Amino acid sequence: MLRSLSIPIIQAPMAGGVSTPALASAVSQAGGLGFLAGGYKTAEAMREEILTMYRRTNCPFGINLFVPSNDVIDVEKVFHYRERITKEADRFGIKLGEPLTDDDEWESKLAVITELQVPVVSFTFGCPSPEVVYRLKGNGSFIIVTVTTPQEALFAKEAGVDALCVQGLEAGGHRATFLHNSLSPEEDYSLLVLLRLIGEAVDLPLIATGGIMHGRDVAAVLTAGAGAAQLGTAFLRCPESGAHSVHKAALTDPRFTSTAITQAFTGRRARGLVNRFLLEYDDVAPNAYPHVHHLTKNLRKAAGQANDPELMSLWAGQGYQLAQEIPVEKLLHLLMDQARKSLTETVEYLKATR
Amino acid sequence: MLRSLSIPIIQAPMAGGVSTPALASAVSQAGGLGFLAGGYKTAEAMREEILTMYRRTNCPFGINLFVPSNDVIDVEKVFHYRERITKEADRFGIKLGEPLTDDDEWESKLAVITELQVPVVSFTFGCPSPEVVYRLKGNGSFIIVTVTTPQEALFAKEAGVDALCVQGLEAGGHRATFLHNSLSPEEDYSLLVLLRLIGEAVDLPLIATGGIMHGRDVAAVLTAGAGAAQLGTAFLRCPESGAHSVHKAALTDPRFTSTAITQAFTGRRARGLVNRFLLEYDDVAPNAYPHVHHLTKNLRKAAGQANDPELMSLWAGQGYQLAQEIPVEKLLHLLMDQARKSLTETVEYLKATR
Repeated sequence: MLRSLSIPIIQAPMAGGVSTPALASAVSQAGGLGFLAGGYKTAEAMREEILTMYRRTNCPFGINLFVPSNDVIDVEKVFHYRERITKEADRFGIKLGEPLTDDDEWESKLAVITELQVPVVSFTFGCPSPEVVYRLKGNGSFIIVTVTTPQEALFAKEAGVDALCVQGLEAGGHRATFLHNSLSPEEDYSLLVLLRLIGEAVDLPLIATGGIMHGRDVAAVLTAGAGAAQLGTAFLRCPESGAHSVHKAALTDPRFTSTAITQAFTGRRARGLVNRFLLEYDDVAPNAYPHVHHLTKNLRKAAGQANDPELMSLWAGQGYQLAQEIPVEKLLHLLMDQARKSLTETVEYLKATR
Repeated sequence: MLRSLSIPIIQAPMAGGVSTPALASAVSQAGGLGFLAGGYKTAEAMREEILTMYRRTNCPFGINLFVPSNDVIDVEKVFHYRERITKEADRFGIKLGEPLTDDDEWESKLAVITELQVPVVSFTFGCPSPEVVYRLKGNGSFIIVTVTTPQEALFAKEAGVDALCVQGLEAGGHRATFLHNSLSPEEDYSLLVLLRLIGEAVDLPLIATGGIMHGRDVAAVLTAGAGAAQLGTAFLRCPESGAHSVHKAALTDPRFTSTAITQAFTGRRARGLVNRFLLEYDDVAPNAYPHVHHLTKNLRKAAGQANDPELMSLWAGQGYQLAQEIPVEKLLHLLMDQARKSLTETVEYLKATR
């Protein structure tokens, strides 16, 4: 599958309105692999987006699903957190959402994907059962699971997936982590190290994601052993991106100077620009997804409508400063030119050294 | 300087007994750049090591110095920490060290380096003044400063250094961070992202360090724009390495499964294997270097003598599992063979995709 792409670049599925059919189809049309984000929306809305994709392009594309989890939630902490952040909702005269759980319409979405035979299906926040993987593969889909540790890579391999999306800690948005080690603190691996450790442990095609902004990075991860590079933040400012205008503007706003991983917005660790909400609530936010997501949803929406980036989840990878406002096709060709150039230079450099 | 190396691989200066003249001279003799660690020891002991190097090799080598800082220390927190960890010292029947400060014999060491005209001098934990840089350069030394953010890179460039050692968060041992941002949490950049951001901001030769264990990684960071790759953990298990036998053994001991950044051992953030001391004291250890280093020094030494890795600082980068027990020269040639092979494969792969 990866080798059939004329450009070994994948556009990351970015839920919450960024990965529109406009963005994904532009990437696929240009020779990369575009991705729709199945998460957060209804199965019906996802169905419409997939049908739109089929109308827009004959090239392969992917859809990403959130795997529901059975994490045990500390309800008391969630209620305490609601109390703490209520004053932020009051500021906009809105109510916080109900901190409930849901399965993101898991079964309905699998049914839609099966019905519409989506060429590539990737999963985040978990690994589907071997039965689901087998069924989707039998239906013609190429199956990818997003992993953040060598243990998760082995787990996904056991489930029979076709490829792994290897997510380094540089990545913007949610960490895909799904196997937790209770004995030691969670280790966030950088992309290069994770590619190496997983490459040594598992013989599957690897897709590298996290902090890739320039063609040199694309060439570097391919050299490190990846079959393709997946970029998210690099597409945020493209005209085809559905990112909120306030989000796009924040990426070049000098008041934001760094990113951090926080669970303040959704109850699950995710990387975004450091803003007031993150600074104030990071250390009191509970680990409770999707409860906290639902709790803060209205608040983030109201902040967006009020053009207030300080209370929005401004997902961004490390290196976000290099996101450019250029059309998708131009960006892809620029990245590949840079990649080829850097490879040629490196080959020459090594010839010169010995 | 970097271009004159026949192998663009630098052996990281690892203080505390690892980077012996035996290790550093083996690296330089094989065509890489070996490094002595000037930190922790006396100026006189450092002088002896440099003289030993000159006897062992005619090839260039480097010495690394710790730059003393004027960080304000919370003395009360240090005393509280001493109380907390006293029971660990009692276990070995020893006394904790005095949590004092020192400047690591800064001026005396600069005098030795000037007298002995060491070919390459690198700095960690700070950037020497432009006057010191100018003086050492005038004396024939090539000057490198270790940086962990684009801001530090710009700062070092202003001081007139010849090259930057770009340290990603993957790196084992101490983080070299020296400019702290009081407004937002410290951002630990991955090596690839940091190479990109610094490469865009500063026109100086870059040395990549952090998590590099395999020739593919060497090729990847050269492709990403580095002029050389600096490896530390990869040399730990070489017979020429002066690492403590307990430290070497811990790298392959299945009871250790991850690394973390902690200031529990020295009062300055450093990455090591997650062991009992790290787990128990990480969240109460104060940010107070070198005070905490002196406080825990005897304890770590006693633990080493008792073959107890749970109370030692087992510095290791992410990816430490791949450290091999092979002689330096063989390791360097293996890395370069892997690097060339991966570059060739990547060039072929890109030809095939379009």
